[in-house]
Amino acid sequence: MSTSPAMTHPLFTKHEDTLQKALTAIETRGYWSPFPEMPSPKVYGETANADGEAAFKAHLNKTFELDQPSTGETVGAEQSPFGFPLGIRYPKSEPDALIAAAAQAQRKWREAGPKAWIGVSLEILTRINRLSFEIGYSVMHTTGQAFMMAFQAGGPHAQDRALEAIAYAWDQLRRIPADAHWEKPQGKNPPLAMQKHFNIVPRGTALVLGCCTFPTWNGYPGLFADLATGNTVIVKPHPGAILPLAITVRIARDVLREAGFDPNVVTLLATNPNDGELVQNLARRPEIKLIDFTGSTQNGTWLERNAHQAQVFTEKAGVNQIVIDSADDLKSVARNIAFSLALYSGQMCTAPQNIYVPRDGIRTAEGTVSFDAVAEAIAGAVQKLCSDAARAVELLGAIQNESVIQRLDEARKLGRVLADSQSLEHPAFADARVRTPLVLQLDAAKDEAQFTREWFGPISFVIATDSTDQSLDLAGRIAAEHGALTLAVYSTDDKVIEAAEEASIRGGVALSINLTGGVFVNQSAAFSDFHGTGANPAANAALADAAFVANRFRVVQSRVHVEPKAVPA
Amino acid sequence: MSTSPAMTHPLFTKHEDTLQKALTAIETRGYWSPFPEMPSPKVYGETANADGEAAFKAHLNKTFELDQPSTGETVGAEQSPFGFPLGIRYPKSEPDALIAAAAQAQRKWREAGPKAWIGVSLEILTRINRLSFEIGYSVMHTTGQAFMMAFQAGGPHAQDRALEAIAYAWDQLRRIPADAHWEKPQGKNPPLAMQKHFNIVPRGTALVLGCCTFPTWNGYPGLFADLATGNTVIVKPHPGAILPLAITVRIARDVLREAGFDPNVVTLLATNPNDGELVQNLARRPEIKLIDFTGSTQNGTWLERNAHQAQVFTEKAGVNQIVIDSADDLKSVARNIAFSLALYSGQMCTAPQNIYVPRDGIRTAEGTVSFDAVAEAIAGAVQKLCSDAARAVELLGAIQNESVIQRLDEARKLGRVLADSQSLEHPAFADARVRTPLVLQLDAAKDEAQFTREWFGPISFVIATDSTDQSLDLAGRIAAEHGALTLAVYSTDDKVIEAAEEASIRGGVALSINLTGGVFVNQSAAFSDFHGTGANPAANAALADAAFVANRFRVVQSRVHVEPKAVPA
Repeated sequence: MSTSPAMTHPLFTKHEDTLQKALTAIETRGYWSPFPEMPSPKVYGETANADGEAAFKAHLNKTFELDQPSTGETVGAEQSPFGFPLGIRYPKSEPDALIAAAAQAQRKWREAGPKAWIGVSLEILTRINRLSFEIGYSVMHTTGQAFMMAFQAGGPHAQDRALEAIAYAWDQLRRIPADAHWEKPQGKNPPLAMQKHFNIVPRGTALVLGCCTFPTWNGYPGLFADLATGNTVIVKPHPGAILPLAITVRIARDVLREAGFDPNVVTLLATNPNDGELVQNLARRPEIKLIDFTGSTQNGTWLERNAHQAQVFTEKAGVNQIVIDSADDLKSVARNIAFSLALYSGQMCTAPQNIYVPRDGIRTAEGTVSFDAVAEAIAGAVQKLCSDAARAVELLGAIQNESVIQRLDEARKLGRVLADSQSLEHPAFADARVRTPLVLQLDAAKDEAQFTREWFGPISFVIATDSTDQSLDLAGRIAAEHGALTLAVYSTDDKVIEAAEEASIRGGVALSINLTGGVFVNQSAAFSDFHGTGANPAANAALADAAFVANRFRVVQSRVHVEPKAVPA
Repeated sequence: MSTSPAMTHPLFTKHEDTLQKALTAIETRGYWSPFPEMPSPKVYGETANADGEAAFKAHLNKTFELDQPSTGETVGAEQSPFGFPLGIRYPKSEPDALIAAAAQAQRKWREAGPKAWIGVSLEILTRINRLSFEIGYSVMHTTGQAFMMAFQAGGPHAQDRALEAIAYAWDQLRRIPADAHWEKPQGKNPPLAMQKHFNIVPRGTALVLGCCTFPTWNGYPGLFADLATGNTVIVKPHPGAILPLAITVRIARDVLREAGFDPNVVTLLATNPNDGELVQNLARRPEIKLIDFTGSTQNGTWLERNAHQAQVFTEKAGVNQIVIDSADDLKSVARNIAFSLALYSGQMCTAPQNIYVPRDGIRTAEGTVSFDAVAEAIAGAVQKLCSDAARAVELLGAIQNESVIQRLDEARKLGRVLADSQSLEHPAFADARVRTPLVLQLDAAKDEAQFTREWFGPISFVIATDSTDQSLDLAGRIAAEHGALTLAVYSTDDKVIEAAEEASIRGGVALSINLTGGVFVNQSAAFSDFHGTGANPAANAALADAAFVANRFRVVQSRVHVEPKAVPA
């Protein structure tokens, strides 16, 4: 009945080596990953790609089988951003029924204890890794990511973030002793002695609210942090990106069932579009004790302010920024930035939006370069990167939904167009919604109302400032007030780098310095880079750290007198 | 400029040995304390008691000196529950001025880094320990605790809880590496290599809202968790118990000044009674990032629901319960319970209120004892404990404020009086507000509306239930719905003990089993007992655990390319 980290479990033993390596990784924060990011036949098997694509296609225009409480009806209206309806129907479930099923499943799951929670979580993850191609294609055709990114970010990188969350959970769970002998000296009298037992008690039922751009990468940390700490989980995907999480839930249920648990420890709440009211009602249910959300500031803030009964972890909108002060080689700066703007059409929570350049120009190895020349270098690099449609689409992917297209049209009116957004034809998908990045010129003196908002999608601004000082002041202030997940600085001056680090601390935002090579500001590596800080409005938590997991479980102790061990003095 | 756990500080080195022992203690959770709880001349010095009392008396009817931003006016209206006004005036400070001073002090404090925060916190604590007698008398004459308890709970035990919070803070801080070398293989190309730096960034300015019954015991954990993680702190004592925290703040400021920091890292916001509006306005200020509160459910819930900009840690009201199922020796059960009811006149957040006894009586070694006999045994033990006024006052202390007296009068009408509350004359303080406990008989079948509320003060109910099953059901449900910090069970039946542990898990409340000796359910030992669980409405946090500290700081990283160390394959 009592649970403790001491009780063991075969799945824990099976994966203990990986767990130990993950624990070392989060401590040293160097490079590490157990899940190969290259979709290589050598790693994943000669037929893995073809099998994965076939498995994805087999889902289309069918009902997704999931033996969980359901009304018997189906829901689902996913559209591939590459231009076709998925036609997949999912079992419709009532929140009431899923909450009741979770409560039913909770007790045995809780009683199994931390090593079972960790072992089962790691086994689920291992099975997910084997289906990385199927999940990759599913991510591609729900989010609009090009395949390579869908495979990497939706597969191994998401699995890394999940493992990271599990490792943090275990790192906290293992600190709670199962039992303690407490013996307090009483001078010449016999000591007072008590045996204490510490029950690790999960919060209860958790709700994971997925997003439509990174359903697995953003959904897994909360899901696995919840599971690893003994909670039951209802996974509510974004109506536009159900499939990757439906596959995930099915794997989780299979593993739970095989391990002798009620599979309703994890359930799927698939919905049709415009499910806001359903989510708001569910999120305030007293049974829901944990909520992980990725999405709009409006919805995230609503949850933070209304779901008082739950621990709420949110990632919301932000304004990511780049400060250009000086550079040895402007071309490599522009190339690196252009890649960051084009990658998945800027539909990343880490993609840069505001690029500050002093109106008097910047110093380079070849002398001062004017503001206009810097702006043109960036715009030119973007246009060059997207000049070959067949290659560009593998970087750009497709636009996830129509509201991004509308935002592009709205943004075009904001300032002088440096690089206009173009439609590109996708060689493989004639109806794919592909757009190149829009780059505009704005001025810090008059356009602040515009560039302090997030313009989600392939929209960026080269903003003329009075000086690097003003650029850094804006960067720190906008991050602190409006949120940001990334900040980058380009400078050859150590004092400016130092001032940028100060601005990043003021803004509570991670800083990338002089990226001109193979690392891009949008990229965040599990086990090494904290994704988000929890220190500005873009996110109230970081992926992952102790704070992300430590409040997902509680300790309920008992104590009873026992015979003292010491002999009275 | 950058901060990391690697930077050292002389005060860290000075106290490192104590810190290491505290880290071991929170890991093993056996008995440990570095601060002797006996007010012994051998430990604290031959003249420590007399000096401490004299120091306390020297505060009376004077202005408390504190060189912090002030309007030049003074505030303060503390009354000793032992029957005299303290007459102490404190500098009046405007919240605006304290917030501005904290912001000014923040940068250098932040830049000093974790070892400075920990070292300074430990030095403050050591100095506080030396003034345990002065603080003990100050706690006595603000809270109404008898001297021994005021010394122990207000002195060494509070210092233990502070050290515990500091140890938890360091345990989390030390996990963040200062720097990491990240090197990602790129097949036959040179690896990508980055140097990453992790800045530990405190949240900002914290607010500690003290209570009038345990100003130091409940105030120190938040205060020291804040300081140990680099935050600046405004300490806002309850208007009825300012002095113990004023002395604390003065010590903190002295240590900060001597260590070369701006003393405004810690300031005092003393107020007159009825300061609710001031607190509400302050608690919602954007600069306030952390709030620790102990007090009423109404105020605590208000903070949780309105101070959205802050991390809010609350301890609120609860209904503590005892389930009596069976006992070897009813007398020792009754004696133990009576002590718990009388201790500080039940004005402890951990004091029992509801005592469930089956209406058909309980099994004992001497056969079945009827409900009435159990009720009378408890009431009789209370009366016996309080029969000698001179001895009783050293246990009861005095009633903190008039609203407790009014509540006693209101409670008396609720049911049959088993033991009436009496006024006692205090031999040393003629005007002391001393009352013995009121014990009433209620019935589970009809009085639930009454006994699901907290009746703070020396008020308890022996409640007739249909069975131990019903008792345990009530205990778990009331704890879960109305909150509780303690639960006790008396039974000779292992199955009942097991069911009680299940009820404690359902209620998220710590369980004490068969306490008949020198440990009482109200007592919670730092480093061993988690005080509160954070799993029911009585508190959203536990003292102390990782969750209590991990979100008081954040990590803001920077990364820059460096030369790879590995030779390409």
